Amino acid sequence: MTDIHLRAIGVVESSTSEAVDFDWGRVVSRVRLVPELAAGLAGLDGFSHAVVVFLMHEARFEQQRHLVRRPRERADMPLLGIFAQRAACRPNPIGVTTVAIERVEGDSLWVRGLDAIDGTPVLDVKPHARVFDAPQGSREAEWLARLMRGYF
Amino acid sequence: MTDIHLRAIGVVESSTSEAVDFDWGRVVSRVRLVPELAAGLAGLDGFSHAVVVFLMHEARFEQQRHLVRRPRERADMPLLGIFAQRAACRPNPIGVTTVAIERVEGDSLWVRGLDAIDGTPVLDVKPHARVFDAPQGSREAEWLARLMRGYF
Repeated sequence: MTDIHLRAIGVVESSTSEAVDFDWGRVVSRVRLVPELAAGLAGLDGFSHAVVVFLMHEARFEQQRHLVRRPRERADMPLLGIFAQRAACRPNPIGVTTVAIERVEGDSLWVRGLDAIDGTPVLDVKPHARVFDAPQGSREAEWLARLMRGYF
Repeated sequence: MTDIHLRAIGVVESSTSEAVDFDWGRVVSRVRLVPELAAGLAGLDGFSHAVVVFLMHEARFEQQRHLVRRPRERADMPLLGIFAQRAACRPNPIGVTTVAIERVEGDSLWVRGLDAIDGTPVLDVKPHARVFDAPQGSREAEWLARLMRGYF
């Protein structure tokens, strides 16, 4: 497999600087783009939500430990492959999070609900669209609701 | 901004080998993982949909042409920044597509609706979950429905 080279389009500025499992839903963050790409935000404020693609730069994937595991090491969770989970320690530590758009201003996008710590490199921003991102009748594994209890 | 190095976790096998705008919804593709990561698919078949993150390896971003443009160059579309669009020619050509899971078998995930040509490097696969990916009350820009007319 070939190596893939990307560059950050911007960076997350957040009051949260530690990666923990907690209620990110209320966190407001600023995604600040590099100056030469700031014009690329034009029109994003026509959407209520965006999909932010970012690099979880502090996550380290260890195959033995992370390829197959129980979510949060909980005994009541099934053994699951990393591609059946949203955990951060993945072969490529890419986060994909749907956030609420608070406002767009100059080189910055202010968002609510981004589970990325201060300093996180941002790879892409896309408008969230139901036709692409919210298929009708989608069905989830039963363990997910149990895992998320208390987080939302 | 620092350079970011990633490696493909697998590759798309599809009968579609040309990147065109068309109805990808019916296309069935195989995402074949590299052997050492195949175990990471365990449990993904508990979900109806997955989010596939891939590299649109043939897309070339030209700032002058793609940073701000009208979708499909249509005169009835507004001038939009690339981060308000889902077009392929982006600073980092990363695709994020929600697909229906047909089946998981060995090192492969069979999916429906992946808008990626044969040979596309895959960066990540995540389970699709409404709590993360389908926010209630999301609202889209008015041009999107006009652009999508006839595609879904």
